Amino acid sequence: MLLHILFLIGIAVEAMSAALVAGRRQMDWLGVCVIAVVTALGGGTLRDVLLGRHPLSWIEHPSYLVIVLVSALVTILVAPMMKRLRTSFLVLDGLGLVVFTVVGCDIAKGLHLHWLIILVSGMITGTFGGVLRDVLCTQVPLLFRKELYASVSLLAGAIYMTAPHVGIDHDVGLVAAMATGFTVRMLAIRYHWEMPKFVYKDDWD
Amino acid sequence: MLLHILFLIGIAVEAMSAALVAGRRQMDWLGVCVIAVVTALGGGTLRDVLLGRHPLSWIEHPSYLVIVLVSALVTILVAPMMKRLRTSFLVLDGLGLVVFTVVGCDIAKGLHLHWLIILVSGMITGTFGGVLRDVLCTQVPLLFRKELYASVSLLAGAIYMTAPHVGIDHDVGLVAAMATGFTVRMLAIRYHWEMPKFVYKDDWD
Amino acid sequence: MLLHILFLIGIAVEAMSAALVAGRRQMDWLGVCVIAVVTALGGGTLRDVLLGRHPLSWIEHPSYLVIVLVSALVTILVAPMMKRLRTSFLVLDGLGLVVFTVVGCDIAKGLHLHWLIILVSGMITGTFGGVLRDVLCTQVPLLFRKELYASVSLLAGAIYMTAPHVGIDHDVGLVAAMATGFTVRMLAIRYHWEMPKFVYKDDWD
Repeated sequence: MLLHILFLIGIAVEAMSAALVAGRRQMDWLGVCVIAVVTALGGGTLRDVLLGRHPLSWIEHPSYLVIVLVSALVTILVAPMMKRLRTSFLVLDGLGLVVFTVVGCDIAKGLHLHWLIILVSGMITGTFGGVLRDVLCTQVPLLFRKELYASVSLLAGAIYMTAPHVGIDHDVGLVAAMATGFTVRMLAIRYHWEMPKFVYKDDWD
Repeated sequence: MLLHILFLIGIAVEAMSAALVAGRRQMDWLGVCVIAVVTALGGGTLRDVLLGRHPLSWIEHPSYLVIVLVSALVTILVAPMMKRLRTSFLVLDGLGLVVFTVVGCDIAKGLHLHWLIILVSGMITGTFGGVLRDVLCTQVPLLFRKELYASVSLLAGAIYMTAPHVGIDHDVGLVAAMATGFTVRMLAIRYHWEMPKFVYKDDWD
Repeated sequence: MLLHILFLIGIAVEAMSAALVAGRRQMDWLGVCVIAVVTALGGGTLRDVLLGRHPLSWIEHPSYLVIVLVSALVTILVAPMMKRLRTSFLVLDGLGLVVFTVVGCDIAKGLHLHWLIILVSGMITGTFGGVLRDVLCTQVPLLFRKELYASVSLLAGAIYMTAPHVGIDHDVGLVAAMATGFTVRMLAIRYHWEMPKFVYKDDWD
């Protein structure tokens, strides 16, 4: 129940973040809506397509689409005020990341998949909406280049998955996974923590 | 029956338009063929993958592939003459857009999906082939930036869907949806109608 | 059995090639791993999603993921020595191409699909991992612009498919398809064979 509410907040926040990216590309309103839908629901959609789960959540619950579209349109209207909201925005975005991750892990776990696949499912759900957004806006996915993001997703997934094996209650593990992931994400933004980069300059082609 | 013939014309025209885009990128002949297939059949394929419909239409009917490939190869041969054909080309392209849209709506309707999903299904079928083409050619999808295109798809879908509810015969509604969408598209090209753009310049990253 | 071993070598090599591309984009380690997974397993995944085959191979056999991840990480460590390995690398990459192609054809054939779909299935398996890699790195897919690559895939697929019809044993046909495709690929690299390009300069938009 709590997870579901957090999920709804998550798709709304992802839609708002996507609308701003689309606005920087000067897309028209409909383009903004498409980018918002792809960003907010794309990760979960890709996960379900890969797992062969049908119907997709937003096809079964079109209200998810409505939430995303309303969030995107509201963002267009309030964009001039967004800079002031930036901090709270990053907070909500970090929340979306960990919530999506836990949802994705939970679904793969319910299908009794291998732990590696559970981690991947969480990471796809948490981060690939943003990857699809970046591909549609033709920029190299930020995921691969910015402060800890995908790694936060892996961390949250790992905690969520490990918890039951060390005797921790499912709900406690869920909250612990989200709290830890969220905290690390906030610290990563604050202190610009980054993964080591692989810089390869050899002339290959 | 009429719809099926229009559909076949639609994939041929989309293949031709895609071949020209690929030619501007100086792709080799096989690359042109791949881009043509993705453009002409990608929208319907994405729709069917999202809806979980198998087998895909072109896997069941490989003749669709043949039509697309022949159209692409013919385009390579006749490209020098294409400028003169430009007007009739835009006409056929607009036709493809509304036909694909109505086909997409029709399929979602047959699955008794929510009206919002029916609209989305029509729009994906009508426009995402072009989005996939632009992603493969690494340009920001024109869909989001040009004259009314996706909006024409939504309009045609809305008319098609509303018609039966106001007592209009299915076939009449189908023709009305296509005729209206097509007319608006032609007027949009002629008078450069555009959706309002969302321009956001704040420094966000 | 031999095919399976070659397949495992194929995904390892594709992962290594992808890691180097990601390194040139200065991605972080996790980004390198994601690109490696997409490149090595993306072609087969796309094929299975289009054919509606579930579970996907790497979901059923997570060991494939492990092979890819280890290969990517090893590449990061040994990259300084890679230039010297370049020739053997191109050899292995050509091997991966023909092995993936034959695997893809074999799967489509097992589903009793049309010969055109069998060819497409082989080509998607053999080449679309690289296309997805290029899209994520926002470069126009090399597939469409470099020495014979997709065409080698088509050639290998055609030989594999034709062999039984002219009385050649399945295993012999398989080896002949791979050997021919591999040889042509090596010659294409050596002598810079290319497909004719379609160059279209007309002002279209």
